[in-house]
Amino acid sequence: MNLLPFLEPIHAYMEKVEQRLLRASEVEFPLLRVAVQDMLMAGGKRLRPAVAILASQFYEARADKVVSAAAAIEMLHTATLVHDDMIDRANTRRGHPTLNSRWSGEATVLTGDYMFAVAASLAAETDSVPVVRIFSQALMTICNGELRQLLADRSWPPTREGYDKRIYSKTASLFAASAEAGAVLSATAPEKVEYIRAYGNNLGIAFQIVDDVLDYTGDPAELGKPVGSDLRQGVVTLPALYYLQDARSASAEAEVRRAAGGDPGAVEKAVAAIVSSGAVEKALKEAAGFARKAQGALDGLPDGQSKSILSQLADYVVARRT
Amino acid sequence: MNLLPFLEPIHAYMEKVEQRLLRASEVEFPLLRVAVQDMLMAGGKRLRPAVAILASQFYEARADKVVSAAAAIEMLHTATLVHDDMIDRANTRRGHPTLNSRWSGEATVLTGDYMFAVAASLAAETDSVPVVRIFSQALMTICNGELRQLLADRSWPPTREGYDKRIYSKTASLFAASAEAGAVLSATAPEKVEYIRAYGNNLGIAFQIVDDVLDYTGDPAELGKPVGSDLRQGVVTLPALYYLQDARSASAEAEVRRAAGGDPGAVEKAVAAIVSSGAVEKALKEAAGFARKAQGALDGLPDGQSKSILSQLADYVVARRT
Repeated sequence: MNLLPFLEPIHAYMEKVEQRLLRASEVEFPLLRVAVQDMLMAGGKRLRPAVAILASQFYEARADKVVSAAAAIEMLHTATLVHDDMIDRANTRRGHPTLNSRWSGEATVLTGDYMFAVAASLAAETDSVPVVRIFSQALMTICNGELRQLLADRSWPPTREGYDKRIYSKTASLFAASAEAGAVLSATAPEKVEYIRAYGNNLGIAFQIVDDVLDYTGDPAELGKPVGSDLRQGVVTLPALYYLQDARSASAEAEVRRAAGGDPGAVEKAVAAIVSSGAVEKALKEAAGFARKAQGALDGLPDGQSKSILSQLADYVVARRT
Repeated sequence: MNLLPFLEPIHAYMEKVEQRLLRASEVEFPLLRVAVQDMLMAGGKRLRPAVAILASQFYEARADKVVSAAAAIEMLHTATLVHDDMIDRANTRRGHPTLNSRWSGEATVLTGDYMFAVAASLAAETDSVPVVRIFSQALMTICNGELRQLLADRSWPPTREGYDKRIYSKTASLFAASAEAGAVLSATAPEKVEYIRAYGNNLGIAFQIVDDVLDYTGDPAELGKPVGSDLRQGVVTLPALYYLQDARSASAEAEVRRAAGGDPGAVEKAVAAIVSSGAVEKALKEAAGFARKAQGALDGLPDGQSKSILSQLADYVVARRT
């Protein structure tokens, strides 16, 4: 496990989550076991489980239940990635071959389904119906968002509203669910659960904006994907939106539209124009604003280790390079 | 809703399940709503929800919770069908076009995922963690079985053990889960829950054997698929197993193997040989035996309407022609 340094104080917890995930993938059918374990061990940062654990530590909570919830979140997240990679026809994720690049589409679908079932089973281990409800609703939001993107969101010009909806569905909803699940497993008063959920939501927004920035400015070797992947797939994210908004020129718009429309030569040009325009800095500044909002949401909660680490996590999410 | 006549006494309950299913598919994104509703309304017999409702009626139970559980089962079942049809590249189910025949594979995968999430959310509405656990474990069994069939089960000769495993994973596990979920939502003592679960399991086995028989003897127009579909897809079911066992001839084996191996001319010949061999009657006799076992499992439960209808359901499952 590659734990981020500031998460060291919850090392023992995170170790238990790893063990729980491995145990949950000890399935009868060997090919399935290998597939599930490969996906789980492909080097995720385990940010969502960490959020759930830290969110549970403001007030008293049963450690074993929190570990089950944290494992459920990671399993659910990984299941969505298995289906996403297949839908995007991605060959690698974080430098590892995706399941769909090695298996048939059929087996990939079923493995993802199996992981959804394991996630539900882990969620049930918390003995908390609210936790099951939080996760199932997050999954509904994620799928609804993906379908919207797949079937309806190709309208031009792309809008900020569409972008906000997309990053909430895709990322913030599950960070918010992680935080909320941790909180409801502890003796947290309902209004304080709301603060913790707001932390998760804002953290998730910041996280996704930075992800979208890194698609323009990150190191392809470290990210395991080429620069401009989003635009190449027709996805217009915040840097491009700022670029379009500031340029206010028909030629800039035509350029981005060509790139998003699948013209490979146009992608490189558009990426260069966007990166040199100041749009990336604007997007990063906005991400930092959401990170501060996340930190601010914690104001009404007791000071201590949890608050301090969650605050560092918000800073990290903006500062990270991978 | 096309209710089977002997289910008339639970009509009001079944009507509530329909309404709950429709309400659960009232999603924001219109294309998704239509897809979910089309799938749900494509003429299923709602046997699993009926089993859950009847299983809850031996002892006191809260009607609203039972309706949620019954709706969750049907949603879960339908979600697995969405992914199955895609994997099997089926164009119709029960005479209606499948989702994958109208949508892209990507949208089909995500719609199925969305339905899994709705099923989990409906299960959480029961406020019963055991119900969530029962359903998630049934889904694990189903996926595990499908993957086994997809990736490993093409060994020759096909075995009875493999067939038994397959029909448990594919069908009996969810009937057993339906019965168990209904029972745990009522004031049923644990050992009696076991009886009810055993009913569901044996009913499911009988149901699947008859399904496999109808694939040989049913009316293609009524079933909405050609005779011999299983064999054509390489799936060797009980009638073919009995035929192979009784024929004990190398030529019979070669004939079935050719058919299962994808030779379209061989399918028709093999089907005719199997149907005229008495293997179908043997399989049906075995299904009737499982139906009686299901009825016998109810012996330790109070007499009354539920027992009587569940018993009729077991008879129906064997006698049905579609």
